[in-house]
Amino acid sequence: MTNTPNPQPPHGTDFPSAHDPLLFTPGPLTTSLKVKQAMAYDIGAWDAPLKSLIKEIRDGLLTALGTSQAQGWECVLMQGSGSFSVEAAVVSLVPTHGKIAVVTNGAYGQRFIKIAEMAGIEVLPIVFAENQPAEAKVIASMLAENPDVTTVGIIHCETTTGLLNNIQAVGEVVNSAGKTYIVDAMSSFGAYDIDITNIDALISSANKCIEGVPGFGFVFSRKALLQASGEGSWARSHSLDLYDQWIGFEKGGKFRFTPPNQVLLGFQQALREFFAEGGVAGRKARYQDNYQTLIAGMTAQGFVPFLETEKQSHIINTFLCPADDNYDFLTFYNKLSDRGFVIYPGKVTGSECFRIGNIGRLYPRDISSLLNAIEGVTQDMNFDPSHVAISATV
Amino acid sequence: MTNTPNPQPPHGTDFPSAHDPLLFTPGPLTTSLKVKQAMAYDIGAWDAPLKSLIKEIRDGLLTALGTSQAQGWECVLMQGSGSFSVEAAVVSLVPTHGKIAVVTNGAYGQRFIKIAEMAGIEVLPIVFAENQPAEAKVIASMLAENPDVTTVGIIHCETTTGLLNNIQAVGEVVNSAGKTYIVDAMSSFGAYDIDITNIDALISSANKCIEGVPGFGFVFSRKALLQASGEGSWARSHSLDLYDQWIGFEKGGKFRFTPPNQVLLGFQQALREFFAEGGVAGRKARYQDNYQTLIAGMTAQGFVPFLETEKQSHIINTFLCPADDNYDFLTFYNKLSDRGFVIYPGKVTGSECFRIGNIGRLYPRDISSLLNAIEGVTQDMNFDPSHVAISATV
Repeated sequence: MTNTPNPQPPHGTDFPSAHDPLLFTPGPLTTSLKVKQAMAYDIGAWDAPLKSLIKEIRDGLLTALGTSQAQGWECVLMQGSGSFSVEAAVVSLVPTHGKIAVVTNGAYGQRFIKIAEMAGIEVLPIVFAENQPAEAKVIASMLAENPDVTTVGIIHCETTTGLLNNIQAVGEVVNSAGKTYIVDAMSSFGAYDIDITNIDALISSANKCIEGVPGFGFVFSRKALLQASGEGSWARSHSLDLYDQWIGFEKGGKFRFTPPNQVLLGFQQALREFFAEGGVAGRKARYQDNYQTLIAGMTAQGFVPFLETEKQSHIINTFLCPADDNYDFLTFYNKLSDRGFVIYPGKVTGSECFRIGNIGRLYPRDISSLLNAIEGVTQDMNFDPSHVAISATV
Repeated sequence: MTNTPNPQPPHGTDFPSAHDPLLFTPGPLTTSLKVKQAMAYDIGAWDAPLKSLIKEIRDGLLTALGTSQAQGWECVLMQGSGSFSVEAAVVSLVPTHGKIAVVTNGAYGQRFIKIAEMAGIEVLPIVFAENQPAEAKVIASMLAENPDVTTVGIIHCETTTGLLNNIQAVGEVVNSAGKTYIVDAMSSFGAYDIDITNIDALISSANKCIEGVPGFGFVFSRKALLQASGEGSWARSHSLDLYDQWIGFEKGGKFRFTPPNQVLLGFQQALREFFAEGGVAGRKARYQDNYQTLIAGMTAQGFVPFLETEKQSHIINTFLCPADDNYDFLTFYNKLSDRGFVIYPGKVTGSECFRIGNIGRLYPRDISSLLNAIEGVTQDMNFDPSHVAISATV
């Protein structure tokens, strides 16, 4: 499980580099060479090996969540990006005439709201600032004031900033209020221990902390909730009908519609590497090492984090853009990219930021290489990283 | 562009064979080794090379359709399986309070209907038998009787059987009636010349006749129709909103949500191979050779096609299962699979059938190898291929 660069340039592409760049992003991520090699195989949609592959993935994901079918949980894979799985959960698991309260403190919370609204589902937004973790007591009082709410949705790690919501504290008030609790754990699943006691459904995708390539997502759901959704015919979409998709897996072992076979082959390998690394504990330890290396190096160079440390996940970090005439993001990005390091633009409302991810098949030595590159580019561009607009800090 | 088998077993998988099987299916298909190799690369979602890759694919697909942006057509890529793109077209391009007439003669027509119904769109099914191509005059009278219909949907090649609908004749009556015409050309795009004169939108996917791997589909639409859908806020889904997806490509050159990067890399190579083979003309010629080799060999062995020749596409063929005590499909399938040839089960209502696809990176010599294997398995199982229930023939 070393981070061997791809030894040959890809065939049939215009990429000049003989090596893959390293991706310090929220995903798609840097994956292992073996994950990529596992995809180089043609497999039929109806084949027995594909069925056992799907079963290994569904069972393995439940294990990664710390549960199993015997404990009343199900894992439903869904084609498309992770947001398609969020939409599948929302349009399938909110009852007909139900109402969803969505806790938001960033772009992915807003997307969650828009998904529900466009599907014709009534939404109660519960809005916190982008640098403010969700407060359980605020949510408790909103639920008390809105008894027609059936379902509560929240983002665990808000990729907009890297902010971590306390999904356990919120889960307790949601559970006390008797509501269904749906957690978007897109960026955090596999990298954080998640207590599922108060959770009814949880969403993530192939190209996040399990370190596969993009092409499908997955929704964990309590079996009773899935069954209720089927009995009540809640689904508002055929493609994104979780119950029907689940029945397809359970009855025939197959996807109802064409499966992303090569992406599944890559993910099988990624999942095996995840368990070989020690599951959540091992992966969390490596990402924390990456995070600590990054934050120590960046602050030593004078860069200013957007969030206070205690609000910060070890998934992705947001830094304020220097307010220096010699700095501009595109030049900074391109100069780093030219050296083989891909970072990510910011998404915070009203603050100029950029982001650096700690996840994917990256090790502290890769973070150190990135830090060296950033130092070189900073000198090259001749800006002061610590010179930020005070109003933008929090 | 030879059909080189994968020289090494895939890493990290349980597949015992050192070679890929050959897939005689409606997709996912056998792809070239270069397509698979092109996927072994990590690329960031925000990278300039990804933007040029997306542009090459969108422009190339328009060229394959015989049109361009300058001629008022747009190509919108959409994550997920091909059916997700059908749903994207339906939920985005049927006006608010619109009504869609769906012409059906098989399982994919039925799926089209279910997609519209579950999205809350009023549907008028126009049903033909599974062995009966759609008749333009029947459709004309249905449209005359139902003036509230805004949109007509049809399947070009119904993969249930391999039956080909005359989308041009139907298009003329749809156009005369002033309705919007949406064609599901999933299995036929790239393998048939398509006259788009009367067509407003057309759907296909990555893992069909362009010979990529599964992970996204695409919707061609007249620009004016896309614009009307945006201005009228017709979309009933955020993930599957074609207008918003199109704006994302046009404004930023990117997917709105996580792109299936490796699948896109493979598709870029597949599209280059498509043009290198001579585009539709070259691919059609090879598939016709495959088809003629197959149908001649199968009928010589005594197998009975489900469809009359003139109703039959060169995409996929349906054969009646022998009504012989020594025959059963699973044994037949598994024995062929053991020899490296993957065929496909039937889907016809009320008739026991199996299917053999002619598409993918397959050549007449591969069809000949399959025919030899079928002959061997037939002898091995000791059944009479020509012994079919008379009632099942048409």
